[in-house]
Amino acid sequence: MLQSQLFTKTKKEAPADEVSKNAILLTRAGYIHKEMAGVYSLLPLGLRVLNKIIGIIREEMNAVGGQELTMATLQDKALWEKTDRWDDTKVDNWFKSALKNGTEVGLGITHEEPLTNLMREYVSSYRDLPVLAYQFQTKFRNETRAKSGIMRGREFLMKDLYSFARTKEEHEKIYNSLREAYRKVFERVGLGEHTYVTFASGGIFSQFSEEFQTVSDAGEDIIYVDEKKNFAINKEVLTDEVLVQLQVKREELVEKKSIESGNIFHLGTKFSEALGLSFTNEGGESVPVLMGSYGIGPTRLMGTLVEVLSDEKGIVWPTSVAPFAVHLLALGEKKGASFKEAENIYRQCTERGIEVLFDDRDTRAGEKFADADLLGMPVRVVVSDKTLAEGKVEIKERSSTDSKLISRGELFAHFEHKK
Amino acid sequence: MLQSQLFTKTKKEAPADEVSKNAILLTRAGYIHKEMAGVYSLLPLGLRVLNKIIGIIREEMNAVGGQELTMATLQDKALWEKTDRWDDTKVDNWFKSALKNGTEVGLGITHEEPLTNLMREYVSSYRDLPVLAYQFQTKFRNETRAKSGIMRGREFLMKDLYSFARTKEEHEKIYNSLREAYRKVFERVGLGEHTYVTFASGGIFSQFSEEFQTVSDAGEDIIYVDEKKNFAINKEVLTDEVLVQLQVKREELVEKKSIESGNIFHLGTKFSEALGLSFTNEGGESVPVLMGSYGIGPTRLMGTLVEVLSDEKGIVWPTSVAPFAVHLLALGEKKGASFKEAENIYRQCTERGIEVLFDDRDTRAGEKFADADLLGMPVRVVVSDKTLAEGKVEIKERSSTDSKLISRGELFAHFEHKK
Repeated sequence: MLQSQLFTKTKKEAPADEVSKNAILLTRAGYIHKEMAGVYSLLPLGLRVLNKIIGIIREEMNAVGGQELTMATLQDKALWEKTDRWDDTKVDNWFKSALKNGTEVGLGITHEEPLTNLMREYVSSYRDLPVLAYQFQTKFRNETRAKSGIMRGREFLMKDLYSFARTKEEHEKIYNSLREAYRKVFERVGLGEHTYVTFASGGIFSQFSEEFQTVSDAGEDIIYVDEKKNFAINKEVLTDEVLVQLQVKREELVEKKSIESGNIFHLGTKFSEALGLSFTNEGGESVPVLMGSYGIGPTRLMGTLVEVLSDEKGIVWPTSVAPFAVHLLALGEKKGASFKEAENIYRQCTERGIEVLFDDRDTRAGEKFADADLLGMPVRVVVSDKTLAEGKVEIKERSSTDSKLISRGELFAHFEHKK
Repeated sequence: MLQSQLFTKTKKEAPADEVSKNAILLTRAGYIHKEMAGVYSLLPLGLRVLNKIIGIIREEMNAVGGQELTMATLQDKALWEKTDRWDDTKVDNWFKSALKNGTEVGLGITHEEPLTNLMREYVSSYRDLPVLAYQFQTKFRNETRAKSGIMRGREFLMKDLYSFARTKEEHEKIYNSLREAYRKVFERVGLGEHTYVTFASGGIFSQFSEEFQTVSDAGEDIIYVDEKKNFAINKEVLTDEVLVQLQVKREELVEKKSIESGNIFHLGTKFSEALGLSFTNEGGESVPVLMGSYGIGPTRLMGTLVEVLSDEKGIVWPTSVAPFAVHLLALGEKKGASFKEAENIYRQCTERGIEVLFDDRDTRAGEKFADADLLGMPVRVVVSDKTLAEGKVEIKERSSTDSKLISRGELFAHFEHKK
């Protein structure tokens, strides 16, 4: 894409009303736009990142047998009353509205209730199970405070998968496959080494669950990491009993701040019993379906990537989720020889399927360099009169300070190799 | 995909609470699930259709220079008060809610206000224009009645593009390019010959606009078609003055019922003036930006396709939007020779990138044929002991009654050719 055509621009100043690093950098770089506290629009570059994250999650959910659907936002009060999750004294972050005839509706905070209800139409026999269904859906949560940028929004994208199984063994197998799928997602988006499977409270559904906690000072959680065993325990559940159960010694744990970036839950039969989702097993008995839920927020992941990987100059995207693989900078005069060479490289990269953001603006070099650092593409390529004189281009990784001169052919080979 | 793995199933009976053909057929075929009147979830097959429609629209919007973004659902009252579109007596289909601190918020009915406001951050000079920005976004409209299935939902997907131009000439050029882009969308989704560019009221923004009206008895609009000139006039604006202006004779017009399936509007400076979006032109003057808006509903298009193209046996998808290109039916015994042959064909089609729904269920032939007609894939391929005896498969187009026997090689060639 030609940067001169992109309608967004970078800003030198941090927005006055933001405190979180992710919101400040993503706003300055033109990835997001704040509509109100906790509510952001995704601008073209931001949407490109989000779609790459979504693509990775979708592949991993499909790989374990997930079937994608899209549930509705507007929620039927009657369903949520059956599980006692409608009343504001029970669930305190609903946005509610009403139809013209006065019927109350809610904006989906999560989707266990409507999906369990939907499954009643399709599940009646053991032959209809197991089912894994998932979606990418905007969730609405009426947070009292919203100061964490896109990490805790009042409106945010969530990938939620729900599993429906016949037996405890089948449920455990699915649950374990999702744990592995989540590990792969964190690896692939570039957060693998910062993220721990974390033993945590099961909330209202079961005694324990597992969270994926990404170490960051921007986190709201405290975890205790066992680095040898490569897992962590959420402070909330760190008791002597749990230490014994997990065979961990308290003195080997290291306290860290972290961001809850995913979670996987055993739901048991809480929802299937309340909403009447049962099946006839091979013995002819009617039994409730065993459920699990598995959540990961693509917008939160995007914010987490900025919190964890950015530096003092700006964002540092991993290649897998960067809006473009290359930021190509043409220096010198707008119609000059180095601009022409950069145009050639841009065209040839595009023909090869390499995604390039081409800074073809009539702007001074210092500004182009600063913008490239702020925007955070993984590789910067500079064409100037100086590099042109040597018949080369300058290539530099965003995460490194070293640059080198390479030929055009070496440049293409660099990306062919990475594919 | 293996049909035995698909969690949805077909239903023989029409849902008791639906009156529209699209809702009845899409529900029976397992494409959608009703959550409440006018609110539907999209099940795996339905989401596949929707994503194909979205893909086509996205390509055409990008081709005219559109930049994709995603705005928020939650709306800031203050912005809408500036254009006098907040008050329920002015705009009667808002869903409204409130933050914890009591601040009212609305659910986006459309996005002129927030996008115009957003553009103030990026547009100040003539050098920043023109801009075409678009999104695929869930809109919420609090309809009093909602009986048209996914054609008029309380919650539905909309592609809305907004254009920002410097001059009347520039705006007209963009507007015309969008009219052509919309024509291409209707052609590509298979509604071209049923859809007329229709002269219509401009609503509150300008005297006239253009609608894309698709002829169907399920429509709520009345249009007068000039078949020679290949355009139509909405009944609402059919006056002698308009007839003279358009050089049309009343006696040459044919009255038809139709579905408004897209519209393109001149917005002038209504929003830019109210919200303060201006730019400095080449002469150094500050002038308001000229705007246009261009809407098309992917979910409504999906419903329209069902209304217009289905027959008494079920849905008939055009190839471009069908969830799968081929419905492959294995008849005979589950472990028998024809099943094995069908499995081979399924595998080889998949390797060739041909999208196949493989009915591998242990179900009788009559049920498989009825389901294939109801589900509506454009091509049905049957492998039975009879076709196997001849070393062939039976191929039949959904829209035709003729079938023929062809070899496996001819089958692959058929689809290679279509790509």
